[in-house]
Amino acid sequence: MLVTAVMVAGFVAFTLAESANTDEAAAPDVGRELPPGYRDWRLISVAHEAGNLNDLRAILGNDVAIKAYREGKLPFPDGAIIARLAWSYVPSEENNKVFGRPQSFVAGDPTNVQFMVKNSKKYASTGGWGFAQFDNGKPAQNVVQNACFACHEPAKARDFVFTRYAP
Amino acid sequence: MLVTAVMVAGFVAFTLAESANTDEAAAPDVGRELPPGYRDWRLISVAHEAGNLNDLRAILGNDVAIKAYREGKLPFPDGAIIARLAWSYVPSEENNKVFGRPQSFVAGDPTNVQFMVKNSKKYASTGGWGFAQFDNGKPAQNVVQNACFACHEPAKARDFVFTRYAP
Repeated sequence: MLVTAVMVAGFVAFTLAESANTDEAAAPDVGRELPPGYRDWRLISVAHEAGNLNDLRAILGNDVAIKAYREGKLPFPDGAIIARLAWSYVPSEENNKVFGRPQSFVAGDPTNVQFMVKNSKKYASTGGWGFAQFDNGKPAQNVVQNACFACHEPAKARDFVFTRYAP
Repeated sequence: MLVTAVMVAGFVAFTLAESANTDEAAAPDVGRELPPGYRDWRLISVAHEAGNLNDLRAILGNDVAIKAYREGKLPFPDGAIIARLAWSYVPSEENNKVFGRPQSFVAGDPTNVQFMVKNSKKYASTGGWGFAQFDNGKPAQNVVQNACFACHEPAKARDFVFTRYAP
């Protein structure tokens, strides 16, 4: 089944893909539109992935997610959304000059943005989480809900979320 | 002159040090208290400093700073505050297992938090910026306004701010 993503100008609304037919199993429930205002969400933590990813990343949370993190509440309640933004990992010659040696790496171009959306009923088969990825603001075609979940399974004790809150 | 920092419970107010005597030159105008709610500010960018610092960092901005960044407005208007949070750079064995190789670095314990506060009159001699650092929530004793500014001078063309906004 081909799911056509309707991108509303300005990313007005965030809805997870609702299958219009009965072929639910074949239609991965990934996000069709970026959650409005996600770039304004509060910071959970930061990270660096080397290797092929070679990025710097920020993990942000909507109000529901941040509240749960700060209260140490597990599992995350329905409505929690966690966003992972990433940018290419770029040495900063400008900063290195100031520090007097090559040590500084900054965020370059954005790579992609990923989301985990909690809806315990809708995504019951994947720990209550829906997974989505956006490349240049558009839903990635190659991300499969079950594949995302498979990698997150080892973090089951923390409701399938790897990132810890950075105080 | 000994400046005694009065830490109000919960960091109620953020005031820059107002010298109570005439010895202004000897009393660096650094922050006495953490700006309330700075951990909730919006993200400007992320970075990694290797070397002795060996940290992962997030740069956040208050509303005035974020607005100026997004509008590309220079110099930053009075009232802008930029926060640099940093955490130790820690390999994540947990994440590495999932990725199948050692590539993942996450935020460990916090190191310190630094602020740049724009007040073009008060800090006229340092590009309009006041500089502050807090270790474990308390004002650092070893940070000198002029020393901070000296390192920031090469970024004069961007109003002495190195960090660029990460889209």
